[in-house]
Amino acid sequence: MRVMGVDPGLTRCGIAIVQQAPSRKVELLQVQVARTLPSLPVAERLRQLEKVLIAIVQEFKPEVMAIEQIFSQHNLRSVMGTAQAAGVAMLVAARSEIKVATHTPTQVKAAVTGSGRADKKQVTQMVRKICNLNEDPKPADAADAIALGICNLWQNPKLVKRVS
Amino acid sequence: MRVMGVDPGLTRCGIAIVQQAPSRKVELLQVQVARTLPSLPVAERLRQLEKVLIAIVQEFKPEVMAIEQIFSQHNLRSVMGTAQAAGVAMLVAARSEIKVATHTPTQVKAAVTGSGRADKKQVTQMVRKICNLNEDPKPADAADAIALGICNLWQNPKLVKRVS
Repeated sequence: MRVMGVDPGLTRCGIAIVQQAPSRKVELLQVQVARTLPSLPVAERLRQLEKVLIAIVQEFKPEVMAIEQIFSQHNLRSVMGTAQAAGVAMLVAARSEIKVATHTPTQVKAAVTGSGRADKKQVTQMVRKICNLNEDPKPADAADAIALGICNLWQNPKLVKRVS
Repeated sequence: MRVMGVDPGLTRCGIAIVQQAPSRKVELLQVQVARTLPSLPVAERLRQLEKVLIAIVQEFKPEVMAIEQIFSQHNLRSVMGTAQAAGVAMLVAARSEIKVATHTPTQVKAAVTGSGRADKKQVTQMVRKICNLNEDPKPADAADAIALGICNLWQNPKLVKRVS
């Protein structure tokens, strides 16, 4: 099972590819943060993001795209950019017939750390541990994208294997 | 000058193609409302909308896409759908190297009726008059898309020709 985690954003969009090996170990195949300049027109920024997403989908052929669900706590301007970035990701998934799943930040934190109230540092540390990385994934958008992918891999209770 | 007006929405997206003839008369070449079913996944709805937008862009080759600017008065859920629909429209424009312009509802009403506080009925009536249509464009999303196109055509003061 191979999942593409997307922490959507126009300025920074975290994108990760994780997969569960037959041993149930989670492997991180790719992680990056796609950035677009706020000084560019939104249309151009969306187009740049689309290109990055398409390239990753074509290279890694994920079965599922797990996107963070957007909430109202952000201000409207940032919600719109985030919603549009998420929309582009969904569009890219739909075109390639990849299933789309959304997860709330609470679900993601709970899946990765065991607590829906974990802070960014705890999420980063657990992501590092789960994927057996040599260093912390940075920036936070990268760690969040990996965590989204892990959350999706583990959402089926039968597949859950906690790292203690 | 040929403009594609887009009143963005996931459930109903108004799309119009208007152009200004050498006589400065505004011609309506196409108007339609693209609908997607709320029961479908958002990714699929965005994909369906994208297909309609691409088809219209390819057929009419507009020079500008004029999209309604989104505001906070809607609820978050509808803002997100609207923002995503607008994002898809921008993406389609950027891919075809079509310039994107956004106009506020107040700008559109003022351009078409002379008053930024005009109601939907007044906008519809003026759109009908300006484009010399035999009947009112319906539904409101269709009239709004045409009005957006007209607003963009007329935003350059040198080109303004009021219909009295």
